[in-house]
Amino acid sequence: MLDFDTIAAISTPMGEGAIAIVRLSGEEAVSIADRIFKSVSNKSLNEVPSHTIHYGHIVDPKNGQTIEEVMLSIMKGPKTFTREDIIEINCHGGIVSVNRVLQLVLANGARLAEPGEFTKRAFLNGRIDLSQAEAVMDLIRAKTDKAMNVAIGQMEGRLSNLIRRLRQEILETLAHVEVNIDYPEYDDVEEMTHRVLIEKATRVRNEIDNLLQTSQQGKILREGLATVIVGRPNVGKSSLLNSLVQDTKAIVTDIPGTTRDVIEEYVNVRGVPLRLVDTAGIRETEDIVERIGVERSRQYLKEADLILLVLNYNEELTAEDRKLFEAVKGMDYIVIVNKTDLEQKLDMEEVKNLAGSRSVVTTSLLQEQGISELEEAISSLFFMGTIESQDLTYLSNTRHIALLAQAQNAINEAIEGIESGIPIDIVQIDLTRTWELLGEIIGDAVHESLIDQLFSQFCLGK
Amino acid sequence: MLDFDTIAAISTPMGEGAIAIVRLSGEEAVSIADRIFKSVSNKSLNEVPSHTIHYGHIVDPKNGQTIEEVMLSIMKGPKTFTREDIIEINCHGGIVSVNRVLQLVLANGARLAEPGEFTKRAFLNGRIDLSQAEAVMDLIRAKTDKAMNVAIGQMEGRLSNLIRRLRQEILETLAHVEVNIDYPEYDDVEEMTHRVLIEKATRVRNEIDNLLQTSQQGKILREGLATVIVGRPNVGKSSLLNSLVQDTKAIVTDIPGTTRDVIEEYVNVRGVPLRLVDTAGIRETEDIVERIGVERSRQYLKEADLILLVLNYNEELTAEDRKLFEAVKGMDYIVIVNKTDLEQKLDMEEVKNLAGSRSVVTTSLLQEQGISELEEAISSLFFMGTIESQDLTYLSNTRHIALLAQAQNAINEAIEGIESGIPIDIVQIDLTRTWELLGEIIGDAVHESLIDQLFSQFCLGK
Repeated sequence: MLDFDTIAAISTPMGEGAIAIVRLSGEEAVSIADRIFKSVSNKSLNEVPSHTIHYGHIVDPKNGQTIEEVMLSIMKGPKTFTREDIIEINCHGGIVSVNRVLQLVLANGARLAEPGEFTKRAFLNGRIDLSQAEAVMDLIRAKTDKAMNVAIGQMEGRLSNLIRRLRQEILETLAHVEVNIDYPEYDDVEEMTHRVLIEKATRVRNEIDNLLQTSQQGKILREGLATVIVGRPNVGKSSLLNSLVQDTKAIVTDIPGTTRDVIEEYVNVRGVPLRLVDTAGIRETEDIVERIGVERSRQYLKEADLILLVLNYNEELTAEDRKLFEAVKGMDYIVIVNKTDLEQKLDMEEVKNLAGSRSVVTTSLLQEQGISELEEAISSLFFMGTIESQDLTYLSNTRHIALLAQAQNAINEAIEGIESGIPIDIVQIDLTRTWELLGEIIGDAVHESLIDQLFSQFCLGK
Repeated sequence: MLDFDTIAAISTPMGEGAIAIVRLSGEEAVSIADRIFKSVSNKSLNEVPSHTIHYGHIVDPKNGQTIEEVMLSIMKGPKTFTREDIIEINCHGGIVSVNRVLQLVLANGARLAEPGEFTKRAFLNGRIDLSQAEAVMDLIRAKTDKAMNVAIGQMEGRLSNLIRRLRQEILETLAHVEVNIDYPEYDDVEEMTHRVLIEKATRVRNEIDNLLQTSQQGKILREGLATVIVGRPNVGKSSLLNSLVQDTKAIVTDIPGTTRDVIEEYVNVRGVPLRLVDTAGIRETEDIVERIGVERSRQYLKEADLILLVLNYNEELTAEDRKLFEAVKGMDYIVIVNKTDLEQKLDMEEVKNLAGSRSVVTTSLLQEQGISELEEAISSLFFMGTIESQDLTYLSNTRHIALLAQAQNAINEAIEGIESGIPIDIVQIDLTRTWELLGEIIGDAVHESLIDQLFSQFCLGK
């Protein structure tokens, strides 16, 4: 284990809550806590067993003033999150209380932790690899069930294990190359080497291909499909939003720190997580264009993964409707013809012509009709209806996707090289490069600056 | 101990944080947790000792799906916050994660806790009295150090002990009355009773008086002095704000759930907590009147405990300045003549005349001069400079203040009754009433509806 100083931070979100936690990690964690903690049983923390909880008070050793009534957890390394000694001071919630305890901890020898520094230590001390550490962050940021599942799988090492297996195969392949380089005089070795090389490298390539193919779904699972509802005023955008939200138990995210301009809601449509953008705009003015202006609306549309274009069954198609069709051209969209409970005035043939290959769903949101068809259309658009495979390892992290794509290139070059009979030591370089790129995913041989940058995106106290 | 069902709630504030906690309390807490927790050591929670921490996974028993990686704390009653068995499931932070764990806990037999229900159980199970329970809430809401100290003192039973002592004295006094009623034939008993009664009742009355006298300070300590900075544009309101904030390490409160219209900052001026109102308005527009309109500004001024009226040393007094003096008439204010680093154009005599008995402080905020004098003026205005007495028991809760004021009336009537020689059984009624009113403070004989109402003001999970 590496030798670090003792760090401390508030590990719960700031706000009025029932519990707030100050967490310490490091060699001095127990002795610092012991200085400021007066247990009711009068035991020193140096004497108590690991993984036990103690009731008592935080008392400023300088003046004997009681700062807080707390439950203190002691967990001695290496069986901890960071592999170091960890102390968790469980305070009454609120802002002042936990800040006072933190200040006292800092005054007694701990250093304020940087964002992500606890998890970084877990990584540096070898408890988890880099992709697992990244999964910890994904877990915290997860907005949907599916995203959680992907993160949990990754945290448990599913992706790491797959990557490790691929690297092992490459190593074995490289061993064959070595034989070839070391004993070039044996003709049959060379021949066998070629065959085995192609075979092994192709197998690795195929697995990389498969994994990369999960990346689109993985990213959707992780971040949600950015979905925008558009349509003229009064076509039923607000009703559509409500029925999606009601039907799927939306998680409304209203977290300090996120931009307040755009409010997003997450809904889960048959396993497809939709991130509904600017739902506030829809709720408040029934018209996103009116609220945020034409330019910004266009921007929204451009960044959307899915557009729900709502028309009114009870009105003829207007110039404005046609402009909307124009605006979403070339994008993934679904046309929703709403208000089928009213008299038909819309020319459905024209709508279908404008929609082309896109789905057109008719609904009466008022009478709760057509919603299931809409959900069907959404889920088949993105996952051909087959999202539900618990066992699939998804690639969802942009960094991983980029590295794997590079690895794919490298192994393709290796395979082409073998096939075209280029010198085997050139092939060796490509294979080694593939092996290194895969290693970067799990944090083997990555630059310190990258590690610093990765962990700095974490929240404080993690 | 009373027999309750098992409750569960998320006990950390919602948001992206490193740790989120689901807490359970009740007879079934351990068995519910045992059903969904798979410890790495494979031990059942029924076997492990109390006050220990266990690493493992939350697994849905229905389908074997891993929901979260957690640290689970087990604390068996009666040595717990609620006196019942308590389980705390320590999840990775974030919103989805902790919600999934909560849902699973609820699906396996727990009921969602009402706000404050954990603390309510601590009260109903006799671990704390009502004033201590209220202190728990004050602790969470505390915005300043002093407010924390008051709350901690109250939580530790300082107020309760005082109230109990007073009630004991009243009981003893009542015993004397009983003697008098039971043996009215003894003249000397009556005489002695009178003397002792007056003596004892007066002592109780004096203590009640003293305690009530702390209530103004107590309320200020608890809530902070609502302070408004007024002045024409460019006189230095923003600089004043900054220098107060810098000098005293303000706690900027920006908590979800609080109104966003008015942003408040808390600063600690020599022990006097100022709640600076609408600091955002000052920062953004340098002019509260301009930003929120004249009517609402008047309202602010009316609700302020302290007004800091800023003038410009470098300009003659304007009609607007005079209007401000008019607006704050009869209120607690301090005049700050800023920019003494520039040439004097302000007629100080006129200012002093307008200010009357109020302090006039000259500052050059630019050159950091006069700030200490200003702080002195603020602290002497409200506490005559004597706030710093750790040992004083402050009355800060509106409910307590109201009850104590009623108790003061009742005991005064008793004393007057004794002095004017009214029948001793009438005095007895007043004394009993005093005893009961004091009892309500600590939760003896209070209505269930009051209890429900009090605890419903708590945050969830406490």
